[in-house]
Amino acid sequence: MAMQTVTQNKSHGGTQGVYRHPSRETKTDMTFSVFVPDHAADAKLPVVTYLSGLTCTHANVTEKGEFRQACAELGLIFVAPDTSPRGEGVPGDPANAYDFGLGAGFYVDATEQPFATNYRMWSYVTEELPKLIAEQFPVDTARQSILGHSMGGHGALTVALRYPDRYRAASAFAPIVAPSQVPWGNKALGGYLGSNKPAWRKHDAVALIEDGARFSDLLVDYGDADGFLTEQLRPELLKAACEKANIPLTLRRQPGYDHSYYFISTFMADHLRWHAARLTA
Amino acid sequence: MAMQTVTQNKSHGGTQGVYRHPSRETKTDMTFSVFVPDHAADAKLPVVTYLSGLTCTHANVTEKGEFRQACAELGLIFVAPDTSPRGEGVPGDPANAYDFGLGAGFYVDATEQPFATNYRMWSYVTEELPKLIAEQFPVDTARQSILGHSMGGHGALTVALRYPDRYRAASAFAPIVAPSQVPWGNKALGGYLGSNKPAWRKHDAVALIEDGARFSDLLVDYGDADGFLTEQLRPELLKAACEKANIPLTLRRQPGYDHSYYFISTFMADHLRWHAARLTA
Repeated sequence: MAMQTVTQNKSHGGTQGVYRHPSRETKTDMTFSVFVPDHAADAKLPVVTYLSGLTCTHANVTEKGEFRQACAELGLIFVAPDTSPRGEGVPGDPANAYDFGLGAGFYVDATEQPFATNYRMWSYVTEELPKLIAEQFPVDTARQSILGHSMGGHGALTVALRYPDRYRAASAFAPIVAPSQVPWGNKALGGYLGSNKPAWRKHDAVALIEDGARFSDLLVDYGDADGFLTEQLRPELLKAACEKANIPLTLRRQPGYDHSYYFISTFMADHLRWHAARLTA
Repeated sequence: MAMQTVTQNKSHGGTQGVYRHPSRETKTDMTFSVFVPDHAADAKLPVVTYLSGLTCTHANVTEKGEFRQACAELGLIFVAPDTSPRGEGVPGDPANAYDFGLGAGFYVDATEQPFATNYRMWSYVTEELPKLIAEQFPVDTARQSILGHSMGGHGALTVALRYPDRYRAASAFAPIVAPSQVPWGNKALGGYLGSNKPAWRKHDAVALIEDGARFSDLLVDYGDADGFLTEQLRPELLKAACEKANIPLTLRRQPGYDHSYYFISTFMADHLRWHAARLTA
Protein backbone atom coordinates (compact mmCIF):
# COMPACT_ATOMS: atom_id res chain seq x y z
CA MET A 1 0.00 0.00 0.00
CA ALA A 2 2.21 2.81 -1.28
CA MET A 3 1.10 6.19 -0.03
CA GLN A 4 2.19 9.41 -1.71
CA THR A 5 2.16 12.92 -0.33
CA VAL A 6 0.11 15.32 -2.45
CA THR A 7 0.65 18.46 -0.35
CA GLN A 8 1.86 19.40 3.11
CA ASN A 9 1.37 22.82 4.66
CA LYS A 10 2.30 24.01 8.12
CA SER A 11 -0.78 25.27 9.93
CA HIS A 12 -1.55 26.05 13.55
CA GLY A 13 1.84 24.67 14.52
CA GLY A 14 1.24 21.27 12.92
CA THR A 15 1.16 19.75 9.46
CA GLN A 16 -1.91 19.66 7.24
CA GLY A 17 -1.25 17.00 4.66
CA VAL A 18 -3.12 15.55 1.72
CA TYR A 19 -2.19 12.01 0.69
CA ARG A 20 -3.12 9.50 -2.00
CA HIS A 21 -2.89 5.74 -2.16
CA PRO A 22 -4.16 2.90 -4.32
CA SER A 23 -7.02 1.35 -2.39
CA ARG A 24 -7.44 -2.40 -2.18
CA GLU A 25 -11.12 -1.94 -1.36
CA THR A 26 -12.24 0.58 -3.96
CA LYS A 27 -9.73 -0.47 -6.61
CA THR A 28 -9.09 3.23 -7.26
CA ASP A 29 -6.67 5.81 -5.95
CA MET A 30 -8.13 7.35 -2.81
CA THR A 31 -7.22 10.81 -1.51
CA PHE A 32 -7.52 11.84 2.14
CA SER A 33 -6.23 14.57 4.44
CA VAL A 34 -4.53 14.28 7.82
CA PHE A 35 -3.71 17.05 10.29
CA VAL A 36 -0.97 16.17 12.74
CA PRO A 37 -0.46 18.73 15.50
CA ASP A 38 2.91 19.59 16.91
CA HIS A 39 3.94 16.80 19.29
CA ALA A 40 6.86 15.26 21.10
CA ALA A 41 9.07 13.10 18.88
CA ASP A 42 7.98 9.81 20.42
CA ALA A 43 4.35 10.69 21.17
CA LYS A 44 1.40 8.64 19.93
CA LEU A 45 -1.68 10.80 19.55
CA PRO A 46 -5.40 10.05 19.62
CA VAL A 47 -7.02 10.14 16.19
CA VAL A 48 -10.38 11.56 15.15
CA THR A 49 -11.86 10.50 11.81
CA TYR A 50 -14.30 12.87 10.10
CA LEU A 51 -16.72 11.53 7.48
CA SER A 52 -18.04 14.10 5.01
CA GLY A 53 -21.46 14.58 3.48
CA LEU A 54 -22.93 14.31 -0.01
CA THR A 55 -20.87 15.78 -2.88
CA CYS A 56 -17.83 16.37 -0.64
CA THR A 57 -14.27 15.18 -0.91
CA HIS A 58 -11.60 15.44 1.81
CA ALA A 59 -11.12 19.07 0.72
CA ASN A 60 -14.34 20.60 2.06
CA VAL A 61 -13.68 20.03 5.74
CA THR A 62 -9.95 20.50 5.27
CA GLU A 63 -10.48 24.03 3.93
CA LYS A 64 -13.66 25.09 5.73
CA GLY A 65 -13.94 22.96 8.87
CA GLU A 66 -11.95 25.19 11.27
CA PHE A 67 -10.70 22.14 13.19
CA ARG A 68 -6.96 22.78 13.27
CA GLN A 69 -6.82 25.28 16.14
CA ALA A 70 -8.77 22.93 18.41
CA CYS A 71 -6.80 19.85 17.30
CA ALA A 72 -3.56 21.72 17.99
CA GLU A 73 -4.73 22.67 21.48
CA LEU A 74 -6.12 19.23 22.28
CA GLY A 75 -3.39 17.15 20.65
CA LEU A 76 -5.65 15.33 18.19
CA ILE A 77 -4.84 13.90 14.77
CA PHE A 78 -7.70 14.64 12.33
CA VAL A 79 -8.32 12.33 9.37
CA ALA A 80 -10.72 13.18 6.52
CA PRO A 81 -11.31 10.57 3.78
CA ASP A 82 -13.19 11.02 0.53
CA THR A 83 -16.89 10.07 0.36
CA SER A 84 -16.70 7.69 -2.58
CA PRO A 85 -14.39 6.11 -5.12
CA ARG A 86 -13.60 8.28 -8.13
CA GLY A 87 -11.79 7.98 -11.42
CA GLU A 88 -12.01 6.39 -14.80
CA GLY A 89 -14.30 3.41 -14.92
CA VAL A 90 -16.05 4.08 -11.61
CA PRO A 91 -19.81 4.01 -12.24
CA GLY A 92 -21.86 6.95 -11.01
CA ASP A 93 -25.52 7.79 -10.96
CA PRO A 94 -26.97 7.34 -14.48
CA ALA A 95 -28.58 10.79 -14.22
CA ASN A 96 -25.56 12.39 -12.52
CA ALA A 97 -27.59 13.04 -9.38
CA TYR A 98 -25.73 14.52 -6.41
CA ASP A 99 -27.17 12.00 -3.95
CA PHE A 100 -26.00 8.72 -5.44
CA GLY A 101 -22.78 7.38 -6.94
CA LEU A 102 -19.76 9.69 -7.13
CA GLY A 103 -19.50 11.77 -3.96
CA ALA A 104 -22.28 9.74 -2.35
CA GLY A 105 -20.88 6.42 -1.22
CA PHE A 106 -23.00 6.35 1.94
CA TYR A 107 -20.33 4.36 3.78
CA VAL A 108 -21.59 0.93 2.71
CA ASP A 109 -20.10 -2.01 0.83
CA ALA A 110 -22.29 -2.22 -2.25
CA THR A 111 -23.60 -5.63 -3.26
CA GLU A 112 -25.49 -4.49 -6.36
CA GLN A 113 -23.94 -4.17 -9.81
CA PRO A 114 -22.36 -2.11 -11.27
CA PHE A 115 -21.39 -0.63 -7.88
CA ALA A 116 -20.14 -3.67 -5.95
CA THR A 117 -16.63 -3.55 -7.38
CA ASN A 118 -15.69 -0.01 -6.31
CA TYR A 119 -18.21 1.19 -3.74
CA ARG A 120 -16.70 -0.42 -0.65
CA MET A 121 -16.59 2.65 1.58
CA TRP A 122 -17.56 0.69 4.73
CA SER A 123 -14.53 -1.54 4.52
CA TYR A 124 -12.43 1.41 3.42
CA VAL A 125 -13.21 3.65 6.40
CA THR A 126 -13.39 0.89 9.01
CA GLU A 127 -10.50 -1.35 7.91
CA GLU A 128 -8.19 -0.23 5.14
CA LEU A 129 -7.81 3.46 5.99
CA PRO A 130 -7.36 3.05 9.79
CA LYS A 131 -4.66 0.46 9.13
CA LEU A 132 -2.86 2.79 6.72
CA ILE A 133 -3.16 5.71 9.13
CA ALA A 134 -1.73 3.61 11.96
CA GLU A 135 1.23 2.63 9.80
CA GLN A 136 2.01 6.09 8.47
CA PHE A 137 1.18 8.52 11.31
CA PRO A 138 1.98 8.75 15.04
CA VAL A 139 -1.37 7.33 16.12
CA ASP A 140 -2.40 5.67 19.38
CA THR A 141 -4.86 3.14 17.94
CA ALA A 142 -6.34 2.55 21.40
CA ARG A 143 -7.67 6.11 21.27
CA GLN A 144 -9.85 6.57 18.20
CA SER A 145 -13.07 8.48 17.71
CA ILE A 146 -15.35 9.37 14.80
CA LEU A 147 -17.61 12.20 13.72
CA GLY A 148 -19.29 13.36 10.54
CA HIS A 149 -21.75 15.60 8.74
CA SER A 150 -25.05 14.65 7.11
CA MET A 151 -24.32 11.46 5.10
CA GLY A 152 -21.03 11.40 7.03
CA GLY A 153 -22.97 11.76 10.29
CA HIS A 154 -24.84 8.65 9.24
CA GLY A 155 -21.48 7.03 8.59
CA ALA A 156 -20.06 8.07 11.95
CA LEU A 157 -23.07 6.88 13.92
CA THR A 158 -23.28 3.50 12.17
CA VAL A 159 -19.54 2.90 12.46
CA ALA A 160 -19.58 3.79 16.17
CA LEU A 161 -22.63 1.61 16.89
CA ARG A 162 -21.03 -1.38 15.16
CA TYR A 163 -17.56 -0.85 16.70
CA PRO A 164 -18.31 0.50 20.18
CA ASP A 165 -15.10 -0.97 21.57
CA ARG A 166 -12.86 0.63 18.96
CA TYR A 167 -14.22 4.19 19.07
CA ARG A 168 -14.20 6.02 22.37
CA ALA A 169 -16.37 8.91 21.16
CA ALA A 170 -18.81 9.64 18.36
CA SER A 171 -20.68 12.76 17.31
CA ALA A 172 -22.41 14.22 14.30
CA PHE A 173 -23.49 17.46 12.66
CA ALA A 174 -26.94 17.23 11.08
CA PRO A 175 -26.73 13.46 10.50
CA ILE A 176 -29.04 11.23 8.51
CA VAL A 177 -30.10 9.01 11.43
CA ALA A 178 -32.55 6.63 9.77
CA PRO A 179 -31.72 6.21 6.07
CA SER A 180 -34.29 3.44 5.69
CA GLN A 181 -37.02 5.97 6.45
CA VAL A 182 -35.95 8.94 4.27
CA PRO A 183 -35.58 9.58 0.50
CA TRP A 184 -31.79 9.98 0.39
CA GLY A 185 -31.32 6.75 2.31
CA ASN A 186 -33.89 4.78 0.37
CA LYS A 187 -32.26 5.72 -2.89
CA ALA A 188 -28.73 4.98 -1.68
CA LEU A 189 -29.35 1.77 0.25
CA GLY A 190 -31.65 0.49 -2.50
CA GLY A 191 -29.07 1.29 -5.14
CA TYR A 192 -26.08 -0.16 -3.32
CA LEU A 193 -27.70 -3.01 -1.34
CA GLY A 194 -30.80 -3.84 -3.39
CA SER A 195 -33.82 -5.26 -1.61
CA ASN A 196 -31.82 -6.97 1.15
CA LYS A 197 -33.53 -5.24 4.07
CA PRO A 198 -31.50 -6.96 6.84
CA ALA A 199 -28.41 -5.40 5.18
CA TRP A 200 -30.08 -1.99 5.25
CA ARG A 201 -30.59 -2.28 9.01
CA LYS A 202 -26.83 -2.58 9.52
CA HIS A 203 -26.45 0.82 7.86
CA ASP A 204 -29.21 2.64 9.72
CA ALA A 205 -28.35 4.10 13.14
CA VAL A 206 -31.92 3.94 14.43
CA ALA A 207 -32.38 0.37 13.21
CA LEU A 208 -29.03 -0.68 14.70
CA ILE A 209 -30.13 0.65 18.08
CA GLU A 210 -33.50 -1.11 17.75
CA ASP A 211 -31.60 -4.29 16.98
CA GLY A 212 -29.48 -3.99 20.11
CA ALA A 213 -26.41 -1.90 19.19
CA ARG A 214 -25.21 0.38 21.97
CA PHE A 215 -22.71 3.22 22.46
CA SER A 216 -21.49 4.97 25.60
CA ASP A 217 -22.95 8.38 24.69
CA LEU A 218 -23.54 10.48 21.57
CA LEU A 219 -23.42 14.19 20.68
CA VAL A 220 -25.53 15.52 17.79
CA ASP A 221 -25.99 19.14 16.68
CA TYR A 222 -28.45 20.30 14.05
CA GLY A 223 -29.63 23.70 12.87
CA ASP A 224 -33.30 24.54 12.85
CA ALA A 225 -32.84 26.46 9.57
CA ASP A 226 -31.48 23.31 7.90
CA GLY A 227 -33.55 22.74 4.76
CA PHE A 228 -33.06 18.96 4.99
CA LEU A 229 -34.14 18.66 8.61
CA THR A 230 -37.69 17.37 8.41
CA GLU A 231 -37.46 15.23 5.27
CA GLN A 232 -33.96 13.71 5.35
CA LEU A 233 -32.39 14.08 8.80
CA ARG A 234 -35.21 13.58 11.32
CA PRO A 235 -33.18 13.76 14.53
CA GLU A 236 -36.32 12.99 16.55
CA LEU A 237 -36.08 9.39 15.37
CA LEU A 238 -32.61 9.08 16.93
CA LYS A 239 -33.85 10.74 20.10
CA ALA A 240 -36.68 8.22 20.45
CA ALA A 241 -34.42 5.24 19.74
CA CYS A 242 -31.76 6.40 22.22
CA GLU A 243 -34.34 7.05 24.92
CA LYS A 244 -35.81 3.59 24.50
CA ALA A 245 -32.35 2.00 24.56
CA ASN A 246 -30.99 4.15 27.40
CA ILE A 247 -28.18 5.56 25.27
CA PRO A 248 -27.23 9.01 26.59
CA LEU A 249 -27.76 11.42 23.68
CA THR A 250 -26.86 15.11 23.82
CA LEU A 251 -29.08 16.44 21.03
CA ARG A 252 -28.76 20.19 20.47
CA ARG A 253 -31.07 22.26 18.28
CA GLN A 254 -29.04 25.27 17.14
CA PRO A 255 -31.35 28.15 16.27
CA GLY A 256 -30.81 29.84 12.91
CA TYR A 257 -28.12 27.48 11.63
CA ASP A 258 -28.36 25.72 8.27
CA HIS A 259 -26.71 22.65 6.70
CA SER A 260 -23.48 24.37 5.57
CA TYR A 261 -19.90 24.49 6.77
CA TYR A 262 -20.78 27.85 8.36
CA PHE A 263 -22.77 25.71 10.82
CA ILE A 264 -20.22 22.90 11.11
CA SER A 265 -17.27 25.24 11.71
CA THR A 266 -19.19 27.03 14.47
CA PHE A 267 -19.51 23.88 16.57
CA MET A 268 -16.42 21.96 15.42
CA ALA A 269 -14.29 22.97 18.43
CA ASP A 270 -17.12 21.96 20.78
CA HIS A 271 -17.23 18.50 19.22
CA LEU A 272 -13.48 18.09 19.35
CA ARG A 273 -13.47 18.99 23.05
CA TRP A 274 -16.19 16.35 23.60
CA HIS A 275 -14.01 13.82 21.79
CA ALA A 276 -10.84 14.85 23.62
CA ALA A 277 -12.50 14.45 27.01
CA ARG A 278 -13.32 10.83 26.12
CA LEU A 279 -10.06 10.09 24.30
CA THR A 280 -7.83 11.27 27.12
CA ALA A 281 -9.93 9.96 30.02
CA MET B 1 -26.35 52.20 -4.98
CA ALA B 2 -28.70 49.24 -4.71
CA MET B 3 -27.16 46.35 -2.80
CA GLN B 4 -28.50 42.84 -3.07
CA THR B 5 -27.98 39.94 -0.71
CA VAL B 6 -26.43 36.93 -2.43
CA THR B 7 -26.30 34.62 0.61
CA GLN B 8 -26.55 34.86 4.37
CA ASN B 9 -25.54 32.06 6.73
CA LYS B 10 -25.51 32.05 10.49
CA SER B 11 -22.02 31.31 11.78
CA HIS B 12 -20.32 31.66 15.15
CA GLY B 13 -23.41 33.41 16.47
CA GLY B 14 -23.39 36.11 13.79
CA THR B 15 -24.25 36.46 10.12
CA GLN B 16 -21.83 35.73 7.29
CA GLY B 17 -23.26 37.49 4.26
CA VAL B 18 -22.26 37.86 0.64
CA TYR B 19 -23.56 40.93 -1.17
CA ARG B 20 -23.45 42.43 -4.65
CA HIS B 21 -23.86 45.98 -5.92
CA PRO B 22 -23.32 47.95 -9.11
CA SER B 23 -20.13 49.91 -8.53
CA ARG B 24 -19.84 53.51 -9.65
CA GLU B 25 -16.05 53.17 -9.68
CA THR B 26 -15.51 49.91 -11.54
CA LYS B 27 -18.68 50.18 -13.67
CA THR B 28 -19.29 46.50 -12.94
CA ASP B 29 -21.19 44.56 -10.31
CA MET B 30 -18.91 44.03 -7.34
CA THR B 31 -19.31 41.19 -4.84
CA PHE B 32 -18.06 41.33 -1.26
CA SER B 33 -18.59 39.52 2.03
CA VAL B 34 -19.39 40.91 5.48
CA PHE B 35 -19.44 39.08 8.80
CA VAL B 36 -21.49 40.81 11.46
CA PRO B 37 -21.17 39.25 14.91
CA ASP B 38 -24.05 39.02 17.34
CA HIS B 39 -24.55 42.45 18.91
CA ALA B 40 -26.99 44.62 20.85
CA ALA B 41 -29.77 46.06 18.69
CA ASP B 42 -28.46 49.64 18.81
CA ALA B 43 -24.72 48.86 18.83
CA LYS B 44 -22.29 50.29 16.31
CA LEU B 45 -19.30 47.99 15.84
CA PRO B 46 -15.72 48.57 14.73
CA VAL B 47 -15.04 47.36 11.20
CA VAL B 48 -11.99 45.53 9.83
CA THR B 49 -11.45 45.44 6.06
CA TYR B 50 -9.43 42.56 4.63
CA LEU B 51 -7.82 42.90 1.18
CA SER B 52 -7.06 39.64 -0.61
CA GLY B 53 -4.12 38.57 -2.73
CA LEU B 54 -3.60 37.68 -6.38
CA THR B 55 -6.26 35.48 -8.02
CA CYS B 56 -8.59 35.73 -5.02
CA THR B 57 -12.16 36.92 -4.72
CA HIS B 58 -14.05 37.63 -1.47
CA ALA B 59 -14.62 33.88 -1.23
CA ASN B 60 -11.12 32.70 -0.35
CA VAL B 61 -10.84 34.40 3.02
CA THR B 62 -14.55 33.97 3.69
CA GLU B 63 -14.23 30.20 3.43
CA LYS B 64 -10.65 29.61 4.60
CA GLY B 65 -9.67 32.63 6.73
CA GLU B 66 -10.87 31.33 10.13
CA PHE B 67 -11.73 34.87 11.26
CA ARG B 68 -15.29 34.44 12.49
CA GLN B 69 -14.60 32.98 15.92
CA ALA B 70 -12.24 35.84 16.78
CA CYS B 71 -14.56 38.49 15.30
CA ALA B 72 -17.43 37.07 17.34
CA GLU B 73 -15.37 37.19 20.53
CA LEU B 74 -13.96 40.67 19.84
CA GLY B 75 -17.11 42.24 18.39
CA LEU B 76 -15.61 43.09 14.99
CA ILE B 77 -17.33 43.42 11.63
CA PHE B 78 -15.17 41.84 8.89
CA VAL B 79 -15.43 43.09 5.30
CA ALA B 80 -13.79 41.30 2.35
CA PRO B 81 -14.03 42.88 -1.12
CA ASP B 82 -13.02 41.37 -4.44
CA THR B 83 -9.53 42.08 -5.82
CA SER B 84 -10.54 43.43 -9.22
CA PRO B 85 -13.49 44.24 -11.45
CA ARG B 86 -14.93 41.26 -13.32
CA GLY B 87 -17.54 40.60 -15.96
CA GLU B 88 -18.27 41.02 -19.62
CA GLY B 89 -16.20 43.75 -21.24
CA VAL B 90 -13.64 44.05 -18.43
CA PRO B 91 -10.18 43.75 -19.99
CA GLY B 92 -7.76 41.29 -18.47
CA ASP B 93 -4.17 40.35 -19.09
CA PRO B 94 -3.68 39.62 -22.81
CA ALA B 95 -1.90 36.38 -21.93
CA ASN B 96 -4.33 35.50 -19.09
CA ALA B 97 -1.54 35.77 -16.55
CA TYR B 98 -2.53 35.39 -12.89
CA ASP B 99 -0.62 38.47 -11.77
CA PHE B 100 -2.26 41.18 -13.87
CA GLY B 101 -5.81 42.10 -14.83
CA LEU B 102 -8.69 39.97 -13.53
CA GLY B 103 -8.03 39.00 -9.92
CA ALA B 104 -5.01 41.31 -9.78
CA GLY B 105 -6.23 44.90 -9.45
CA PHE B 106 -3.37 45.83 -7.10
CA TYR B 107 -5.58 48.42 -5.34
CA VAL B 108 -4.77 51.28 -7.72
CA ASP B 109 -6.83 53.54 -9.97
CA ALA B 110 -5.50 52.70 -13.43
CA THR B 111 -4.62 55.56 -15.75
CA GLU B 112 -3.52 53.43 -18.70
CA GLN B 113 -5.91 52.13 -21.34
CA PRO B 114 -7.71 49.79 -21.65
CA PHE B 115 -7.73 49.48 -17.84
CA ALA B 116 -8.58 53.02 -16.72
CA THR B 117 -12.34 52.60 -17.08
CA ASN B 118 -12.81 49.61 -14.76
CA TYR B 119 -9.65 49.18 -12.69
CA ARG B 120 -10.41 51.74 -9.98
CA MET B 121 -9.82 49.53 -6.94
CA TRP B 122 -8.16 52.30 -4.91
CA SER B 123 -11.24 54.50 -5.02
CA TYR B 124 -13.42 51.43 -4.60
CA VAL B 125 -11.81 50.21 -1.38
CA THR B 126 -11.09 53.63 0.14
CA GLU B 127 -14.25 55.53 -0.82
CA GLU B 128 -17.15 53.71 -2.42
CA LEU B 129 -17.14 50.49 -0.41
CA PRO B 130 -16.61 52.07 3.05
CA LYS B 131 -19.53 54.44 2.35
CA LEU B 132 -21.76 51.55 1.30
CA ILE B 133 -20.74 49.50 4.35
CA ALA B 134 -21.48 52.45 6.64
CA GLU B 135 -24.94 52.83 5.11
CA GLN B 136 -25.89 49.16 5.18
CA PHE B 137 -24.26 47.69 8.31
CA PRO B 138 -24.07 48.67 12.01
CA VAL B 139 -20.62 50.23 11.71
CA ASP B 140 -18.86 52.79 13.89
CA THR B 141 -16.97 54.65 11.17
CA ALA B 142 -14.67 56.22 13.76
CA ARG B 143 -13.28 52.74 14.43
CA GLN B 144 -11.91 51.25 11.19
CA SER B 145 -8.86 49.14 10.52
CA ILE B 146 -7.37 47.29 7.59
CA LEU B 147 -5.34 44.18 6.87
CA GLY B 148 -4.50 42.02 3.91
CA HIS B 149 -2.48 39.23 2.33
CA SER B 150 0.28 39.48 -0.30
CA MET B 151 -1.07 41.91 -2.95
CA GLY B 152 -3.77 42.72 -0.38
CA GLY B 153 -1.08 43.31 2.24
CA HIS B 154 0.36 45.85 -0.19
CA GLY B 155 -3.12 47.35 -0.43
CA ALA B 156 -3.60 47.46 3.34
CA LEU B 157 -0.22 49.07 4.01
CA THR B 158 -0.60 51.73 1.31
CA VAL B 159 -4.17 52.55 2.34
CA ALA B 160 -3.16 52.85 6.00
CA LEU B 161 -0.13 55.01 5.21
CA ARG B 162 -2.23 57.38 3.11
CA TYR B 163 -5.18 57.50 5.56
CA PRO B 164 -3.50 57.27 8.97
CA ASP B 165 -6.32 59.23 10.61
CA ARG B 166 -9.07 57.00 9.29
CA TYR B 167 -7.59 53.59 10.14
CA ARG B 168 -6.69 52.89 13.74
CA ALA B 169 -4.79 49.69 12.97
CA ALA B 170 -3.12 48.00 10.02
CA SER B 171 -1.45 44.64 9.55
CA ALA B 172 -0.49 42.24 6.83
CA PHE B 173 0.29 38.61 6.06
CA ALA B 174 3.21 38.19 3.64
CA PRO B 175 2.71 41.60 2.00
CA ILE B 176 4.34 43.01 -1.10
CA VAL B 177 6.01 45.96 0.61
CA ALA B 178 7.86 47.61 -2.28
CA PRO B 179 6.10 46.89 -5.58
CA SER B 180 8.38 49.31 -7.47
CA GLN B 181 11.30 47.03 -6.66
CA VAL B 182 9.84 43.58 -7.46
CA PRO B 183 8.57 41.81 -10.61
CA TRP B 184 4.87 41.54 -9.61
CA GLY B 185 4.78 45.23 -8.77
CA ASN B 186 6.69 46.39 -11.80
CA LYS B 187 4.32 44.55 -14.08
CA ALA B 188 1.19 45.78 -12.31
CA LEU B 189 2.15 49.39 -11.68
CA GLY B 190 3.61 49.67 -15.18
CA GLY B 191 0.47 48.19 -16.70
CA TYR B 192 -2.00 50.26 -14.72
CA LEU B 193 -0.06 53.51 -14.22
CA GLY B 194 2.36 53.54 -17.14
CA SER B 195 5.69 55.27 -16.72
CA ASN B 196 4.40 57.85 -14.22
CA LYS B 197 6.88 57.04 -11.44
CA PRO B 198 5.54 59.63 -8.93
CA ALA B 199 2.19 57.80 -9.18
CA TRP B 200 3.97 54.50 -8.48
CA ARG B 201 5.39 55.91 -5.23
CA LYS B 202 1.88 56.52 -3.90
CA HIS B 203 1.24 52.77 -4.29
CA ASP B 204 4.45 51.52 -2.71
CA ALA B 205 4.56 51.25 1.08
CA VAL B 206 8.33 51.65 1.31
CA ALA B 207 8.32 54.66 -1.04
CA LEU B 208 5.41 56.24 0.85
CA ILE B 209 7.40 55.99 4.09
CA GLU B 210 10.49 57.39 2.40
CA ASP B 211 8.32 60.27 1.17
CA GLY B 212 7.07 61.05 4.68
CA ALA B 213 3.97 58.92 5.25
CA ARG B 214 3.61 57.65 8.81
CA PHE B 215 1.43 55.22 10.79
CA SER B 216 1.13 54.58 14.51
CA ASP B 217 2.44 51.01 14.35
CA LEU B 218 2.31 48.02 12.02
CA LEU B 219 2.14 44.22 12.38
CA VAL B 220 3.48 41.97 9.63
CA ASP B 221 3.80 38.17 9.63
CA TYR B 222 5.55 36.14 6.96
CA GLY B 223 6.51 32.51 6.63
CA ASP B 224 10.09 31.55 5.95
CA ALA B 225 8.91 28.73 3.65
CA ASP B 226 7.04 31.24 1.48
CA GLY B 227 8.22 30.73 -2.10
CA PHE B 228 7.64 34.41 -2.93
CA LEU B 229 9.61 35.77 0.00
CA THR B 230 12.92 36.79 -1.49
CA GLU B 231 11.81 37.85 -4.97
CA GLN B 232 8.39 39.46 -4.48
CA LEU B 233 7.78 40.23 -0.81
CA ARG B 234 11.13 41.39 0.62
CA PRO B 235 10.00 42.31 4.13
CA GLU B 236 13.51 43.53 4.97
CA LEU B 237 12.82 46.61 2.82
CA LEU B 238 9.85 47.52 5.02
CA LYS B 239 11.93 46.89 8.13
CA ALA B 240 14.65 49.27 6.96
CA ALA B 241 12.16 51.97 5.95
CA CYS B 242 10.26 51.74 9.26
CA GLU B 243 13.48 51.86 11.27
CA LYS B 244 14.64 54.95 9.45
CA ALA B 245 11.25 56.63 9.88
CA ASN B 246 10.74 55.53 13.49
CA ILE B 247 7.54 53.65 12.69
CA PRO B 248 7.11 50.82 15.21
CA LEU B 249 6.97 47.61 13.18
CA THR B 250 6.28 44.19 14.66
CA LEU B 251 7.76 41.96 11.98
CA ARG B 252 7.47 38.25 12.69
CA ARG B 253 9.25 35.50 10.76
CA GLN B 254 7.11 32.37 11.18
CA PRO B 255 9.25 29.26 10.68
CA GLY B 256 7.94 26.64 8.27
CA TYR B 257 4.92 28.59 7.05
CA ASP B 258 4.21 29.20 3.36
CA HIS B 259 2.09 31.70 1.40
CA SER B 260 -1.24 29.85 1.72
CA TYR B 261 -4.39 30.25 3.77
CA TYR B 262 -2.99 27.53 6.04
CA PHE B 263 -0.53 30.25 7.11
CA ILE B 264 -3.03 33.11 7.16
CA SER B 265 -5.63 31.21 9.19
CA THR B 266 -3.01 30.28 11.78
CA PHE B 267 -2.29 33.91 12.65
CA MET B 268 -5.64 35.51 11.78
CA ALA B 269 -6.89 35.57 15.38
CA ASP B 270 -3.61 37.16 16.51
CA HIS B 271 -4.03 39.93 13.97
CA LEU B 272 -7.64 40.53 14.93
CA ARG B 273 -6.68 40.83 18.59
CA TRP B 274 -4.01 43.38 17.59
CA HIS B 275 -6.68 45.31 15.69
CA ALA B 276 -9.24 45.05 18.49
CA ALA B 277 -6.79 46.42 21.05
CA ARG B 278 -6.37 49.53 18.89
CA LEU B 279 -10.02 49.81 17.83
CA THR B 280 -11.40 49.66 21.34
CA ALA B 281 -8.70 51.72 23.06
